Amino acid sequence: MNRTKDFALRERALKVIPNGMYGHQSVRILPASFPQFFGMAEGAYIWDVDGNRYLDYMCGYGPSLLGYKDERVEAAAREQAQIADTLTGPSPLMVELAETLVEMVDHADWAMFCKNGTDATTMAMTSARAQTGKRVVLVAKGAYHGAAPWCTPIPAGTLAEDRAHLRIYEYNDVASLEAAAAEAGDDLAAIFASPFRHDAFIDQEAPKRAYAQRARELCDEAGAMLIVDEVRAGFRLARGSSWTELGVQPDLSAWGKCFANGHPISALLGSDSCRDGAGSIYATGSFWLSAVPMAAAIETLRIIRESDYLEHMERLGARLREGLDIAAKKHGFALRQSGPVQMPQIMFADDPDFRVGYAWAEEMLARGFYMHPWHNMFLCAAMSEADIEETIVAADDAFAALADRLDEIPPHPIMTALAAATV
Amino acid sequence: MNRTKDFALRERALKVIPNGMYGHQSVRILPASFPQFFGMAEGAYIWDVDGNRYLDYMCGYGPSLLGYKDERVEAAAREQAQIADTLTGPSPLMVELAETLVEMVDHADWAMFCKNGTDATTMAMTSARAQTGKRVVLVAKGAYHGAAPWCTPIPAGTLAEDRAHLRIYEYNDVASLEAAAAEAGDDLAAIFASPFRHDAFIDQEAPKRAYAQRARELCDEAGAMLIVDEVRAGFRLARGSSWTELGVQPDLSAWGKCFANGHPISALLGSDSCRDGAGSIYATGSFWLSAVPMAAAIETLRIIRESDYLEHMERLGARLREGLDIAAKKHGFALRQSGPVQMPQIMFADDPDFRVGYAWAEEMLARGFYMHPWHNMFLCAAMSEADIEETIVAADDAFAALADRLDEIPPHPIMTALAAATV
Repeated sequence: MNRTKDFALRERALKVIPNGMYGHQSVRILPASFPQFFGMAEGAYIWDVDGNRYLDYMCGYGPSLLGYKDERVEAAAREQAQIADTLTGPSPLMVELAETLVEMVDHADWAMFCKNGTDATTMAMTSARAQTGKRVVLVAKGAYHGAAPWCTPIPAGTLAEDRAHLRIYEYNDVASLEAAAAEAGDDLAAIFASPFRHDAFIDQEAPKRAYAQRARELCDEAGAMLIVDEVRAGFRLARGSSWTELGVQPDLSAWGKCFANGHPISALLGSDSCRDGAGSIYATGSFWLSAVPMAAAIETLRIIRESDYLEHMERLGARLREGLDIAAKKHGFALRQSGPVQMPQIMFADDPDFRVGYAWAEEMLARGFYMHPWHNMFLCAAMSEADIEETIVAADDAFAALADRLDEIPPHPIMTALAAATV
Repeated sequence: MNRTKDFALRERALKVIPNGMYGHQSVRILPASFPQFFGMAEGAYIWDVDGNRYLDYMCGYGPSLLGYKDERVEAAAREQAQIADTLTGPSPLMVELAETLVEMVDHADWAMFCKNGTDATTMAMTSARAQTGKRVVLVAKGAYHGAAPWCTPIPAGTLAEDRAHLRIYEYNDVASLEAAAAEAGDDLAAIFASPFRHDAFIDQEAPKRAYAQRARELCDEAGAMLIVDEVRAGFRLARGSSWTELGVQPDLSAWGKCFANGHPISALLGSDSCRDGAGSIYATGSFWLSAVPMAAAIETLRIIRESDYLEHMERLGARLREGLDIAAKKHGFALRQSGPVQMPQIMFADDPDFRVGYAWAEEMLARGFYMHPWHNMFLCAAMSEADIEETIVAADDAFAALADRLDEIPPHPIMTALAAATV
């Protein structure tokens, strides 16, 4: 696959960007053949700067829910851009969007808008502390809640004090959660939980009902706030709060990524139980109330309510899981497929340093399918049944190629180290 | 002035947003007549939701540098939106934009992009700590560096630990700066400084050369990083680093607000002295590498380089300051005008609780001029000489009206409390 322009850009980037790239979209710990720079996107597809096309199973790491450049959403954004965007105050769309989310998300009585998922999770923490007057916040081990000093998975440049009064529990482990809450005692401000366990490098886990309900109870007993971090999974599991199906309502929920289909906006939603706390904190940003992303959000949420985007993604995801499983077995591979089918995690059994997963991702990439070897993936509503069938056919071919060279796959040096540190 | 729609929106907002509004654009501590919601913007003008038009001296609190909906910038954004925006990786525009900023900003050898000004200042702090392995960060008393737990001006919901190892000095006071650095001893990681003292509620101050140079020296002596927070003033004082004219180059600078003329993007720029530190931290966000704001930034920066936008704003600002001063004196008022003329702060002598300033801002608002009684304002390049002359004529009229009712002006209850707490 031609990488001429990609490599030229990487060389230029190395000069003017530390390491040439940063953050979650860096390909530094992806297979060597993965492109770093992209030139175009349309629907379910992305094109790298060298013109190679891929069916994108990352969807921008989540933001593309309806597909890139969904014409309905883009039309709403364009129309608003002709009126106003970033102003000296909010537009009426702020109120309309808050009303829309309050209507759609069961627990929500109010909304506050921001830009990053990290803004929303940080505001959730601060609001909970302000509401309760308490300090301790419980987070699940390995869970990602953003990149601020208090939650970044890589602590370089942060201080021990940035994580003061954070306590760790094991997701889905009631005893562990109870022990952490007991340790917090009278000082428990909040419990954080993801809608499901979508940590990198591991099999994903659905939330156990007993865990979710116990988290709610422990918060009620301690006068603490239950926070569900919906940034990654929100509106990919349900048309509202992801834990409604478990019968559990949080006090606060953090949203981001996809509810404006790629336009930059995130939100903290809350119940009246935390309205005073949220109203007392200072949270702001230059672009938080910009009108264009709000117009895009209102249209995206309309489509979420009125279309079968979710059932469509679920159907495609179920077919993909089944088809990949059959194809893998045919060639002697055992896949570890986990997570909701529309947010699949695909890894290989007996692959502790991910070398087989990396090699398979490279085989798939070479065939025009962008898949991730250790991060949950995302389906989008613009994917078609034909896309999925083509993926399965390509996978069959990729597994065959992989079987042929299984003994010669080299380990990925960074991944070997990471796997050792993480598992 | 009709406020029917504004008040109706406020009532709806009260239900679905804590306090009905939050952050720096809340009118809660502005004069009672100020509108909260805006419907439209064009060039130098904004229209509130009831259709009243104002010449906007806040420019969105900074983002509008060339005027709202500058057609050159909007065309670049629209064109990119037809190609791609938020993707699974960056577009080539990321490299082009980094190269552009490195070219324009003297001290910068590299760039990292983000969304909020707070992202950039927080990454500056974290990068400095990572680079130096030290902890203490000096910030000027009353300076605004964002709304994260470590820097928010309103500490509700934050912990004492969030400000661990922060030390306060007085802006422009060399002895105070030296004392704070001495107290930090071997543990000094960074000194933060704004390009000029643009704190709310007080007269603005230009940086003294001795202060800026001593900050640089103290950093050099301690192996610490000098950080200039350009988020508010960047590209309104110079076409590059604001302290170049003082002969002082920082190691890091934080940028935001206006360099994409209202499109959401901010940046941390750095010298090679802090490349390793910045390269070691984890900083990321779902929309940080989106291509549309980068296209808008590249076009805005081109106009910054190629047009006389800065000299134009300076000319207008000088005329405004002179005209307002004369008009005020004519009616017996002494103005305290401070700050760079293109970022004016306008307050009244002998007005400790801001009641005169508030009343004057209301008189100006009623005449179609949106001015702020205690926050620095912003001129933009879309303002014309006629706009300024009209402002001065209106001001003459407003001062006359104000003189007539000077003895009857009520104090603003929140401002009275704030002024007492702040001064």
